Amino acid sequence: MNASEFRRRGKEMVDYVADYIEGIEGRQVYPDVEPGYLRPLIPTSAPQEPDKYEDIVSDIEKIIMPGAASPACTELETVMMDWLGKMLQLPEAFLAEKAGEGGGVIQGSASEATLMSLLAARAKVTKRLQAASPGLTEAAVLEKLVAYSSDQAHSSVERAGLIGGVKLKAIPSDDKFAMRASALQEALERDKAAGLIPFFVVATLGTTSCCSFDRLSEVGPICNKEGMWLHIDAAYAGSAFICPEFRHLLNGVEFADSFNFNPHKWLLVNFDCSAMWVKKRADLTGAFKLDPLYLKHSHQDSGLITDYRHWQLPLGRRFRSLKLWFVCRMYGVTGLQAYIRKHVQLAHEFESFVHQDPRFEICAEVTLGLVCFRLKGSNKLNEALLERINGAKKIHLVPCHLRDKFVLRFAICSRVVESAHVQLAWEHIRGLATDLLAAGME
Amino acid sequence: MNASEFRRRGKEMVDYVADYIEGIEGRQVYPDVEPGYLRPLIPTSAPQEPDKYEDIVSDIEKIIMPGAASPACTELETVMMDWLGKMLQLPEAFLAEKAGEGGGVIQGSASEATLMSLLAARAKVTKRLQAASPGLTEAAVLEKLVAYSSDQAHSSVERAGLIGGVKLKAIPSDDKFAMRASALQEALERDKAAGLIPFFVVATLGTTSCCSFDRLSEVGPICNKEGMWLHIDAAYAGSAFICPEFRHLLNGVEFADSFNFNPHKWLLVNFDCSAMWVKKRADLTGAFKLDPLYLKHSHQDSGLITDYRHWQLPLGRRFRSLKLWFVCRMYGVTGLQAYIRKHVQLAHEFESFVHQDPRFEICAEVTLGLVCFRLKGSNKLNEALLERINGAKKIHLVPCHLRDKFVLRFAICSRVVESAHVQLAWEHIRGLATDLLAAGME
Repeated sequence: MNASEFRRRGKEMVDYVADYIEGIEGRQVYPDVEPGYLRPLIPTSAPQEPDKYEDIVSDIEKIIMPGAASPACTELETVMMDWLGKMLQLPEAFLAEKAGEGGGVIQGSASEATLMSLLAARAKVTKRLQAASPGLTEAAVLEKLVAYSSDQAHSSVERAGLIGGVKLKAIPSDDKFAMRASALQEALERDKAAGLIPFFVVATLGTTSCCSFDRLSEVGPICNKEGMWLHIDAAYAGSAFICPEFRHLLNGVEFADSFNFNPHKWLLVNFDCSAMWVKKRADLTGAFKLDPLYLKHSHQDSGLITDYRHWQLPLGRRFRSLKLWFVCRMYGVTGLQAYIRKHVQLAHEFESFVHQDPRFEICAEVTLGLVCFRLKGSNKLNEALLERINGAKKIHLVPCHLRDKFVLRFAICSRVVESAHVQLAWEHIRGLATDLLAAGME
Repeated sequence: MNASEFRRRGKEMVDYVADYIEGIEGRQVYPDVEPGYLRPLIPTSAPQEPDKYEDIVSDIEKIIMPGAASPACTELETVMMDWLGKMLQLPEAFLAEKAGEGGGVIQGSASEATLMSLLAARAKVTKRLQAASPGLTEAAVLEKLVAYSSDQAHSSVERAGLIGGVKLKAIPSDDKFAMRASALQEALERDKAAGLIPFFVVATLGTTSCCSFDRLSEVGPICNKEGMWLHIDAAYAGSAFICPEFRHLLNGVEFADSFNFNPHKWLLVNFDCSAMWVKKRADLTGAFKLDPLYLKHSHQDSGLITDYRHWQLPLGRRFRSLKLWFVCRMYGVTGLQAYIRKHVQLAHEFESFVHQDPRFEICAEVTLGLVCFRLKGSNKLNEALLERINGAKKIHLVPCHLRDKFVLRFAICSRVVESAHVQLAWEHIRGLATDLLAAGME
C-alpha cells in the first residue's frame, strides 16, 4: 500500500471507528456465537495472491464483529497461527486445526517466548522428578537443573535462565558459529557426571551477531534422546522460511518442543507480534494454571476453547492477530515471499560490493539479509570506521564481536529499501574508509 | 473527543502519517539530540485544564520527531511517569526528576509489574544472604524464601510466586476483606520460627473481587522493619488516587519499594499501559542486567540515560507514553478527576437502588466504581440470577466469591456511561429477579 492509498484507506478506517462509536448502543454487549464459530468462516490457509482490500475490511464486520473481542480475539489468533505455521511448513503437530495437542500463540517478544518455554520445561521436569521421588522439593530439583544454548545465542536466553533460577551453559559454537552435536554432547556428559540434570536447550536459527544457524538435525535427536525440551529461537530468520529455497534451514524442527519467530522483525507486521508454537500445549498451560472465579467461563472445561492467558506471562491480551490477518491477505504468500527475496538479494548485492574491494573482508556466510564485514586490520580501525559511519548519520550500523574480531553489520530491514539505497550506503562506507586509511590508521 | 471530532482529527493523523512516509528520505536516520534533551521541552507536570488539540499535535513534530524513536520513546516515558506520579502525589522518592534513585516505567500488565517486583526482591535478598554467607547457593536460598499477599489478592500474584519458584502464602483478610498487621505478623513469626525467610509482600489497593483495601499503614511498617520488599498492586483503584478525596486510600505508600496501577483500566488510556514505580531503580535493573555488544551504546555508563530493557521482561518496547501524553493533555487533570468522580457517583447511585429493594443486599463497602450485591438467599439463587442476567445479554456481570457467598459485581467502566444506563441496568436486574423469585426459587 503506497502513501496515497494509505490516505484513502486510513480515512475510511477512521470513519469505521467513528461509526462504531456512534452506533455502539445498538450493539449487543455479549456475542451470540458459539465456541469455534470463526474457523469455518475463513479459509484454512493464507491466500497465495493478495485479497482485495474491500473484502478484508468487509470481513471485519461479517466475521469479527459478531464474535466481538471474545471469542473473536482468541479464535482468529489460533487460526492465524495455523496459517503462519503452514506458510513455514511446520510439522502438523504444531498446528491446532486437527484438534491435536499443539498450537500457536502470539507473544510480545522472543524473550517472552524463550522464558515461557524454559518455565514450562522447568515445571515439566520438576513434576516428573517429583513423581519419581516423592518428597523431593522444588528447590532441590532447581539446584540441579541445567539448560544450554550456543555461545552465539541472544542475551535474552541467558536472562531467561536467571529469571527461571536455573544454570544456563554456553556451548562453544564451531567455526561457522553454529552449535554442533559434539560440543553439546560433551557438556551434557560432563554435567550429568557431576550430578546435574540437563532439561532444556535453546537452538538459534539466525543468530543476532552473524545470522548463523545451529545444527538442528544434530542437536534435535540428542534433545529427544535425553528428554530435554528443545526450543528454537528463529526470531529474525523465521520469516524467511516461508520461501521454499530457505525452508531447509528449518529442517529438524520436528525434534523441537517449541518454536518461535518474530513476524514483527521481517514479515511486515508492526511491533509487537512474536509467533510461538508448541507441540503439546498442555506443557505450557499446565505450568502455572490458576482459575479464580472472576476468570471462569461457561466453556472452561469443554476442551472447545483456548485460554491464552495460560500460554503467556501477562493476563490481558491485545487483538494482535488482526495485524497478521491483514498482512497475509494484503500481500498474499507470494507478496511476502517476494519481499523476503528482495531483501536477501540486496544483502548479496552489498556482499558483492565488499568482495570487490580488497581492503574489506566478509566475516560470516551471508544467508539472509545480514552482511557481517570489516576492514582488514585491527579492531581499533574498525571501531573508528563505525564511529565515522554512525557519526555521519546517513546510515546506522550496529556492530558485534565474532570471536576476537570487532565486526560491522549491514542489515537490510526497511520496507522501502531499494538497490539504490544499498549502493549509496556502500559508496558512503567506502568513502569514509578511504578517509580513515588516508589518516594513517591500520 | 466526540465521534465527529474524532473523524476530523483521525483523518488529519492519517495524513500526518502518510506525509511522514512520503518524506522519509529527507529525514536523518539518527537524531542529533543529546541525552536529556526532552525534559526541558515540556512542562514539569500535567496541565490542570485541557490543552488545545492543535498544540498537542504540533508538539509531536517539534518535540518527538527530533528525538526519533530513541531517545524520545524512553525520555517521554520517564517524564510522563513523573507527571502521573505527581498526579497521585507519590512520594518524591518514586520520581525520576530530582535525579534521585527512583523512577517509573510502563509495563504491559499488573501481572508483569508484580512478577518484576518479586524477581527483583528475590535477587536482592539472595545477594544479601550470599554476601553474608559465601558458598550459599541460590537454590538453598530459594528453598527458604516466602512471600505474602492477602487471600483477596489477584491470581497473578500467586502465579508470580510459581514463576519465581518461591512460596507464596495467603494471609487471611479481615471482615472488610483487608490484610491487617496482626494476621501478617502471625504468619511471619510462624514462618521465621520454621526457618523460612520472609522477603516479599504484595499489598492490594482495590481487590478484584470487592475493591477492598489492605491496610498499608499497618502492613508497611512491618515490611520495613523485617526488611521485606513491599509491592503495592493498585491495578484498578490507582486511577482514583488523582482525586484528593480518594488519595487517603494510598496513605502508607511511603513504606513501599514498588507501586503499580493500570491507567488502561480506569484512566482513559487504551490497553496496554501499566504504570509502575520503584524507589530504587537499581534494585530492578540490577536483577538481570546483561549488556551484549549489539545492545551497547555510547551513553551506556554515563548515568544520563535510562535503559528500560533492564526494567522489564521483554527486550523490545512500544512507544506507549504517547498515549499518556495525549490523554493527560486532552483531558487535563480536572477532566480526568471529573471522569473518576462521575463513575464513583454512578456506582453509589446503583448502590442506593440496591438498598431500596429489600430483596437485595450490598456485600462490601462501595468505595469506587464497583458494587458487590446479591439477592438475600442461597448461592444457587444468585447463580441463577446471574445466568439470567448474562443470558439476556443486555448487560454483563462478572461474579466473585466473598467467603462462602456467591456475589454479583456491578462495575462502572464505559467511557460513555450515564445515569440512564445505570437505571436501565437496575430495572433490568430487578425484573429478572422478580421473574426468578416468582418461579419459586429461594
